[in-house]
Amino acid sequence: MSKQISANVVARLPKYYRCLKELCENGVARVSSKTISEALNLTASQVRQDLSNFGGFGQQGYGYDTEYLMNRIRDILGLTKSHTAIIVGGGRIGQALANYNGFANENIEVLAIFDIKTEHIKNVSNITVHNMSELPQYLKNNKVDIAIISVQKEQAQAVAKKVIENGIKAIWNFAPIDLNFGKGIVCENINMSESLMRLIFNSKNVLN
Amino acid sequence: MSKQISANVVARLPKYYRCLKELCENGVARVSSKTISEALNLTASQVRQDLSNFGGFGQQGYGYDTEYLMNRIRDILGLTKSHTAIIVGGGRIGQALANYNGFANENIEVLAIFDIKTEHIKNVSNITVHNMSELPQYLKNNKVDIAIISVQKEQAQAVAKKVIENGIKAIWNFAPIDLNFGKGIVCENINMSESLMRLIFNSKNVLN
Repeated sequence: MSKQISANVVARLPKYYRCLKELCENGVARVSSKTISEALNLTASQVRQDLSNFGGFGQQGYGYDTEYLMNRIRDILGLTKSHTAIIVGGGRIGQALANYNGFANENIEVLAIFDIKTEHIKNVSNITVHNMSELPQYLKNNKVDIAIISVQKEQAQAVAKKVIENGIKAIWNFAPIDLNFGKGIVCENINMSESLMRLIFNSKNVLN
Repeated sequence: MSKQISANVVARLPKYYRCLKELCENGVARVSSKTISEALNLTASQVRQDLSNFGGFGQQGYGYDTEYLMNRIRDILGLTKSHTAIIVGGGRIGQALANYNGFANENIEVLAIFDIKTEHIKNVSNITVHNMSELPQYLKNNKVDIAIISVQKEQAQAVAKKVIENGIKAIWNFAPIDLNFGKGIVCENINMSESLMRLIFNSKNVLN
């Protein structure tokens, strides 16, 4: 991938991947840009343009090879490589994440969960529970790719600073705050509060 | 609000609201576009342009009235009005949502949670637990504004259809699928799987 892919195309890549994976699972060997576009609420020409970015060239009246294209996108997304993660913050969201079964699909292994009060952390299976004080040493001793931050917003920036100081370069942030950090750090936010506010705003004209 | 606000401005509104709310809580009476822009990683001119959309006009060298602007945006977002919600799907995400303490901030009351197997739903407080078969009757008997969908992706479209048939117009969707529905229905998606994939993709150059 020497060619730079635009942020808008990147944002759509997971949707293409999901769509193609479902088609493969249903035994569909070939698919048209029209079918993909209808499933994803895009135009067929948008789909053809996007897929041409990474060597997906459908044949007129014949379509795309579903499995080839799925594997190509999986490779581009980086999902063929396995990654490790820890969860920092063992509250309700942290514990729900510890049990979230989507990580395996993305080839991610969650190793451990950290909190200042480990006695509150129950119902997490297959991962180890640690006190926050052990975090720096843990990151020194273990190869961890991703830190999942699910602490309160007041603690989130300090937690981000600490994990970055200890070598973390990728953050999945659930705290309702925009974290600040230097170059070379990537972050994705799941901001439930902002999503809810957009829902309320957009529904003003449809709700009584 | 007769004037149409662009989708990009709408997407930033919750960020402005959060920022202004924090400033108010910290007793900051006036704020400059520069301060807001730095907190939100925007340019000051972008902030001034956005805020001018809803009557926020800062005075040169004096800034914006924090509380006035916060209240104005809260009103525009529709957060001054209270809303009710139900959760459909009582798995781990559904149960975590039942305990999510962000709803009160947005003036939303979660009334009930539905699942085909109610015996698995534990640890939800202050809301009632119902079998899925009771859903249509419940929606007839109660004023429900928002349906939160946290079922498996295979069931999500059918659940969306059922709640819409019974009068729901606003959906907060946690199932990893793009739901289809007619006009007059609004939907916000929290797609954890897509967010994770973007994180992995964007971190390809920073991770070993």
